[in-house]
Amino acid sequence: MRIGELSRRTQLPIATIKYYQREGLLPPGERTRPNQVGYGELHVLRIRLVRALTEVAGLSIAAIRELLAVMDTPDIPVHQVLGAAQRSLPSAPEPSNDQRWSAALREIAELVDRRGWRVNPNNPGLRAAATVLVTWRELSGDNRAGLLDGYADGVERIAAADLAAVRERGNLEDMVQVVVVGTLLGDTLIAALRRLAQEDASARLFTTGPGIHPVPAPSDPDHAAVDPCSPT
Amino acid sequence: MRIGELSRRTQLPIATIKYYQREGLLPPGERTRPNQVGYGELHVLRIRLVRALTEVAGLSIAAIRELLAVMDTPDIPVHQVLGAAQRSLPSAPEPSNDQRWSAALREIAELVDRRGWRVNPNNPGLRAAATVLVTWRELSGDNRAGLLDGYADGVERIAAADLAAVRERGNLEDMVQVVVVGTLLGDTLIAALRRLAQEDASARLFTTGPGIHPVPAPSDPDHAAVDPCSPT
Repeated sequence: MRIGELSRRTQLPIATIKYYQREGLLPPGERTRPNQVGYGELHVLRIRLVRALTEVAGLSIAAIRELLAVMDTPDIPVHQVLGAAQRSLPSAPEPSNDQRWSAALREIAELVDRRGWRVNPNNPGLRAAATVLVTWRELSGDNRAGLLDGYADGVERIAAADLAAVRERGNLEDMVQVVVVGTLLGDTLIAALRRLAQEDASARLFTTGPGIHPVPAPSDPDHAAVDPCSPT
Repeated sequence: MRIGELSRRTQLPIATIKYYQREGLLPPGERTRPNQVGYGELHVLRIRLVRALTEVAGLSIAAIRELLAVMDTPDIPVHQVLGAAQRSLPSAPEPSNDQRWSAALREIAELVDRRGWRVNPNNPGLRAAATVLVTWRELSGDNRAGLLDGYADGVERIAAADLAAVRERGNLEDMVQVVVVGTLLGDTLIAALRRLAQEDASARLFTTGPGIHPVPAPSDPDHAAVDPCSPT
């Protein structure tokens, strides 16, 4: 297809497609005639991936370029692609390296040890978790030992599902795609599902009533369509 | 304390403290003498909360103002504070309301049904999860039924830990604080812990080697301190 159709298929302006090419995010098209360049389905897929990484996952252009280079390495081990996807996420600024932060980092290392997780000391999750913990402790006191282990229970199940989804793919190229998409969009999906499970847990603990969000009028078709409790 | 000490304690410039006051994020100090206003520990705590909500959770000033109004309502049910905290998060733009999006929304509603979650149709997690699902399907195909249920297993445990941490607080004010902090900082903590559990799951599946991240030199004190595998 020509660039006009590529633009139509991906709903991305031609100028943006050319920008992606200049930034090295999209391989050049194939020259089909002296004055004409053709694009294929791989270009469509790549553009969709780049858009999702910028718009849903919030990655910078530089981070996407590095990640794509790893993805495009022939015969790259899946394990290494996962590492690259993990490192590509922006991380919150770390607090100045004071005592409270070192204590939080130690607490996370102890959790890793307790769970028997095989984790490399360079995994960005270690420092990111410690950073959240420092702020958390400042805001709502010290009592989170049970909470950390409860979260660890949950993420073990989530990570097992992540890796099972990767393994079930037949070829390396698909695996790589699943690792990148799953790692980077998965956080948002998990946060959304947590809202649902929280409401349920809260409903069981604190109320006998209907729920925590204002109930829309029954005539609102937008919501009626998704009401999982409506008798059908 | 006077505003200078409040600024020092919170490491926030006086101009920003005054800005918070103008925006209604911080109650006024108490007039101690005709020309002097005094602040207390509650002001310190409130400033720390507002900073964490902007810097770690990424909330807008308007969203924080609404959330604080709910938190400050006397005798507010905890369940309602949870709802307000959930709704205060920024959500990704929804795709134009096409068929794929309706199908994804139905899929999430079926998941909720299957898990027996009591969820109000206005819970923002429903639409947010559907939005991610549409992008995900576009990028890596259809095979995510097992993944969704695996994630649901995980978030059920996480939500149970969330609510247990709330219940263990003795008074309503502390509960409210834990709900808000936990809901909004918890996503970041869970994403960080997921990186650790993923590396472990991937190590077990795909490698016999040490890990997915470049190993720092053993002399790097920053990392040596958190190596959970180092023999001690």
